[in-house]
Amino acid sequence: MQNHSLVPEPSAELLQLAFDVRRAALSLGHTTLDQRRSSLMKIAESLSTRSREIVAANKEDLDRSEADGLTSALMARLKLDESKLEGAIEGLRRLARLPDPLGHRQLHRKLDEDLVLERVTVPLGVLGVIFEARPDALIQIAALAICSGNGAILKGGSEASRSNEVIMKALKHGLSSSAVSPETLALLTTRQESQALLRLDGLVDLIIPRGSNELVRFIQENTHIPVLGHADGICHLYIDSDADIDQALRITVDSKTQYPAACNAIETLLVHEKVAETFLNKMVPELSNLGVRLLGDDLSQSFGVKMLANEEDWSTEYLGLTLSIKVVDSLGAALEHIRRYGSRHTESIVTSNKETAEIFLRSVDSAGVYHNCSTRFADGFRYGFGAEVGISTQTLPPRGPVGLEGLVTYKYLLRGNGHISADFSSGMKSFSHIDLPL
Amino acid sequence: MQNHSLVPEPSAELLQLAFDVRRAALSLGHTTLDQRRSSLMKIAESLSTRSREIVAANKEDLDRSEADGLTSALMARLKLDESKLEGAIEGLRRLARLPDPLGHRQLHRKLDEDLVLERVTVPLGVLGVIFEARPDALIQIAALAICSGNGAILKGGSEASRSNEVIMKALKHGLSSSAVSPETLALLTTRQESQALLRLDGLVDLIIPRGSNELVRFIQENTHIPVLGHADGICHLYIDSDADIDQALRITVDSKTQYPAACNAIETLLVHEKVAETFLNKMVPELSNLGVRLLGDDLSQSFGVKMLANEEDWSTEYLGLTLSIKVVDSLGAALEHIRRYGSRHTESIVTSNKETAEIFLRSVDSAGVYHNCSTRFADGFRYGFGAEVGISTQTLPPRGPVGLEGLVTYKYLLRGNGHISADFSSGMKSFSHIDLPL
Repeated sequence: MQNHSLVPEPSAELLQLAFDVRRAALSLGHTTLDQRRSSLMKIAESLSTRSREIVAANKEDLDRSEADGLTSALMARLKLDESKLEGAIEGLRRLARLPDPLGHRQLHRKLDEDLVLERVTVPLGVLGVIFEARPDALIQIAALAICSGNGAILKGGSEASRSNEVIMKALKHGLSSSAVSPETLALLTTRQESQALLRLDGLVDLIIPRGSNELVRFIQENTHIPVLGHADGICHLYIDSDADIDQALRITVDSKTQYPAACNAIETLLVHEKVAETFLNKMVPELSNLGVRLLGDDLSQSFGVKMLANEEDWSTEYLGLTLSIKVVDSLGAALEHIRRYGSRHTESIVTSNKETAEIFLRSVDSAGVYHNCSTRFADGFRYGFGAEVGISTQTLPPRGPVGLEGLVTYKYLLRGNGHISADFSSGMKSFSHIDLPL
Repeated sequence: MQNHSLVPEPSAELLQLAFDVRRAALSLGHTTLDQRRSSLMKIAESLSTRSREIVAANKEDLDRSEADGLTSALMARLKLDESKLEGAIEGLRRLARLPDPLGHRQLHRKLDEDLVLERVTVPLGVLGVIFEARPDALIQIAALAICSGNGAILKGGSEASRSNEVIMKALKHGLSSSAVSPETLALLTTRQESQALLRLDGLVDLIIPRGSNELVRFIQENTHIPVLGHADGICHLYIDSDADIDQALRITVDSKTQYPAACNAIETLLVHEKVAETFLNKMVPELSNLGVRLLGDDLSQSFGVKMLANEEDWSTEYLGLTLSIKVVDSLGAALEHIRRYGSRHTESIVTSNKETAEIFLRSVDSAGVYHNCSTRFADGFRYGFGAEVGISTQTLPPRGPVGLEGLVTYKYLLRGNGHISADFSSGMKSFSHIDLPL
């Protein structure tokens, strides 16, 4: 819940800006796929033409941030060199090849003679995007918005202000020679505006945060606009008593070390006591060799884990080479631990027992539940969605990795010929409810 | 945004109760359709057996409320006689015949040899339901929850406390001889608890308010849990210059008077100036004869509308026999009025011009947009959903009339055979992304 003093009321200027974006978005929603695709290509061209200018602006941001003492991790994310920019532009071209998320008919039903109901996908309206550091995110998110027919109000971190400014200029210039209005996109520059954005209920339809867990949590707690994303990714891997030990080793190493900063990397390894000795005697030295710092419960200490995990560790997302290990006496204990400490992101079981696997798949209430594979597969590209907007750990759809379909909604269209409800209430007519081809 | 003092922190007892419901709901989620159907039949039996007791308890509520001076409209909603109870029990039997909303495979994709992704529908978890007056709503919502595999924490109005208590006893008794635990349902009794319910993020997955616009608005503003429903239903009917006047008359009468207390009844009639004289000269006396109080803009006064509508009228949901009329000079002006004052519920156009109709259908950003038919069709039963949970005017799905599918979500299941992401990152393997039959 929110503290009012944290989030200021939107100014008249911000309301006007949001209103203008909304109006432009309405026209965008009526463009054809070809028009949206061609606008993406114009943007790509415009960015290519200005690549030198963009890299130079980014250099200014880097110099200033270095002087300000930005951490090296953030410096790495802030940096936008020729090749990273090329990658982002290539991303635009890939996006332009994806199928249209708009205009899908999801339901087509004859309610009565000449009374036909349709449910078709339409854009959400306006996205509010708050992102940190990475200026290439601006390119990606603006393109996702256009692709899905939505306007976007974006706010980047102050450390990337020069980069974002020059990129936004390039984006708008690209749009100006396309069927999509440059007013579809707007960049906010002050912190106050980005907070007031959270209060634009009715003008902004979805907030997309891209940044630290703290940023996401702050946003979730301070807006009534739906938020796409997740604060924590506390993923678990459970090594069952019937696990194939070689598979368990490979999957553990991959789930923890293949890219530990990702939300789908595991933070906790649960090991059934029956295989704890065999498994951990191999796993502990292997992970240590890979530089993984291991914490564990009492039992795990007998298998080479040296540091004791405290209560807080079980609900900490390390985002780095740290792993908590717990020895459990049953599948039930593993499920209970996940229920208690998990963040409903992605959990996996390693077992050769199909029945145990099915109980796990059924019982774990997370966006992704896996059997005999790495948690690192939780990703829109790997799922085959072509683009990823984010990964949602909320209960309601869209849940899990979200592709372009997370940026659209639907509306019902009903076409009649003078139909009135009284005829059906009186019993003179009755609904046929015949599904027609989609 | 919320004022903290309005919504108390949940007590330890409430947390425990929510936790127990959640645990019971988890088991419910694993029952078969047959088990859930048979539990509904047990509930139906139990209610039938206790019908005398229920009606007597309701009589107590009625007597007390009459003494307290409850309005006649609320008294009517509070009343649960034999026949209304019979209707509610019949509703349970209908619900038991609906197809299973759970276990639908929405996506089935081979990512690689032996690595198969599925997306299947699962229950949300726990519903928080806050309803006013109508005790039959308790029966309906409890049944919808069980049908969709969800637990429910319910809070009824204090005016119906005796009825709700006896009904809940009957519901739990019915469940006690079924495969569904009676703990799946819980009834809150104090106002403080019902408000604290709004803060059970993580324990309650969806709030369903059933009551006045004020109740819904209070809830929307005081919780971060998603809310299914809508505060206002300000629906518009636009009579275009190319309207068939007879159709326009019929549709107007139906949209306004067939059941004016419904959210899908119109509050505003927009009339193109070209047909204003012909149409209103017939419409005004007809509506007046039907007891409809008419307000209108300046122009409408020349066509027999006697009272002037003020600014506030355009955004008022009368929920009764009052209608505001505005004469507009173009389709654009009608669209602009709807954009400005509408609540994105349902709007309809009457026109014989297909092109105009398509512009209207495309441009209006409401859950339902209709052509040549009454707005009163905006209803889950009329759409053929079999059951209606509510009508949502939010942007994100579920939008519009929501059937059982609004009470489920999905999760991704991934079954592999030792698959790790490093093999795909290194280029050793590549994703096949082949869609398999659903």
